[in-house]
Amino acid sequence: MSKIGTVSTHPVVLNDDRNLYIIKIGGNVIDNSENLHAFIKDFTALPGFKILVHGGGKVATQLSETLGIEAKLVDGRRITDIETLRVVTMVYGGLINKNIVAQLQRFGTNAIGLTGADGDFIRTKKRPIKDIDYGFVGDINEKSIDPKNISNLMEAGFTPVFCALTHDGEGQLLNTNADTIASALAVALAKLYNTTLIYCFEKKGVLKDINDEDSLIREINPHHYDELKSQKVIHSGMLPKMDNAFKAISCGVKAVIIGHSDDLGKLKHNKPFGTLLSKS
Amino acid sequence: MSKIGTVSTHPVVLNDDRNLYIIKIGGNVIDNSENLHAFIKDFTALPGFKILVHGGGKVATQLSETLGIEAKLVDGRRITDIETLRVVTMVYGGLINKNIVAQLQRFGTNAIGLTGADGDFIRTKKRPIKDIDYGFVGDINEKSIDPKNISNLMEAGFTPVFCALTHDGEGQLLNTNADTIASALAVALAKLYNTTLIYCFEKKGVLKDINDEDSLIREINPHHYDELKSQKVIHSGMLPKMDNAFKAISCGVKAVIIGHSDDLGKLKHNKPFGTLLSKS
Repeated sequence: MSKIGTVSTHPVVLNDDRNLYIIKIGGNVIDNSENLHAFIKDFTALPGFKILVHGGGKVATQLSETLGIEAKLVDGRRITDIETLRVVTMVYGGLINKNIVAQLQRFGTNAIGLTGADGDFIRTKKRPIKDIDYGFVGDINEKSIDPKNISNLMEAGFTPVFCALTHDGEGQLLNTNADTIASALAVALAKLYNTTLIYCFEKKGVLKDINDEDSLIREINPHHYDELKSQKVIHSGMLPKMDNAFKAISCGVKAVIIGHSDDLGKLKHNKPFGTLLSKS
Repeated sequence: MSKIGTVSTHPVVLNDDRNLYIIKIGGNVIDNSENLHAFIKDFTALPGFKILVHGGGKVATQLSETLGIEAKLVDGRRITDIETLRVVTMVYGGLINKNIVAQLQRFGTNAIGLTGADGDFIRTKKRPIKDIDYGFVGDINEKSIDPKNISNLMEAGFTPVFCALTHDGEGQLLNTNADTIASALAVALAKLYNTTLIYCFEKKGVLKDINDEDSLIREINPHHYDELKSQKVIHSGMLPKMDNAFKAISCGVKAVIIGHSDDLGKLKHNKPFGTLLSKS
């Protein structure tokens, strides 16, 4: 059962011994029960405050196919129509989120599974229709997250587990990219905690050669990042993730790590893990 | 955004000005958007601490049919096989729960949608196999709910919204009857709050004549209940609900009200609503 903590009503103070890890996992963890099992043990072993953010995985696509809902793409961008929103609300908010929570509880993390609607934690705006109508997609802005609100839940002894859903405050759930949710949470909570943002994905980190896991780049700062981009070492799919990461760092997040979930356990032993992005 | 409260670490003290309403809604509210809309406004207008518990509705049955999952009944009792558990996790824990939360947020209730796995709030035991294997069904016992744990969340400014799912603490989600969850929550929280349990259903309350909504019985005490049973005024479907209700009252719940969600608004004006079950 949960620890009972005290809820601070003091003004926001950055406290050096208050570390927060915000960890985002994707399909390679969610779709593989062995990976998920190992991840959950490593997540639970990490000290300090923690937030888990998860994306979708294959289940939503499979359910959509079974229900005969066609994936709608415009210019390669996925559209969230009302039927797709129903599916992701069921799969992200229900099936995936609640099974992760049950597993975390099994190993002793007092998890609470959330969308951005719960606790009004992440309020977004439906993306305006310009050239493309993306449907029920919510864009995060600087007012989307009140860090005190989430801190309030964590200080009461609970570990938030967010799925890729938000709301507009007018009763409408919206689909929001999980990477974006993770970085927005990190930026907001960096006002209250020493925040490290971790993206777990299917590679060991940022690689010089995408086909060689031994070509891991251990550290990247903004200057180095510019070089890697101009050398085209960083490929197109990594660019939005890296841009998000450096934006978060410029907004107060202590560090961003990009790595494989298998290596998360190294963190608690203070061993290097993945690619560390930092300010300098 | 949430109120910031203080979390009490004092021993359990029954405080007279701390009222809690635990309200259970069923299909007639969930399946009808007008009823749900009206209910949510009335729920939000109620003063004090509140917990919402919701059951299923037609959506789970419809989704099961679409997915080709046959409803399994043994001796008229529903069996929760693994496929059905997946469906109810998606529908109860995702679709219904998160849409109710988004609507509550719209009207100003700082709701958090939960299963019993979240926060380890309701831990149950998988029903033992005797004559019938009910599958993934969780039975509540007196150790299932730690009232301080839920109080902790409420005192931090959040309004819990529970669906009909629990967990066994070993990573397994389980299906648990929503009426039972509501009464178990009421009994547990009666140790900390002046607790009133409200069952909203499709009738105005307990009726002398099931076909005559004007035959509402305003109040029933245990003695009167025995009379009504022996006169067979209380019909079979109502018996488990009423037995649960009087059991809750004998365990410290102040009162139980059985009524129609349309009439919930009367409560805040201190007008009689539905059938009031009380100790004497």
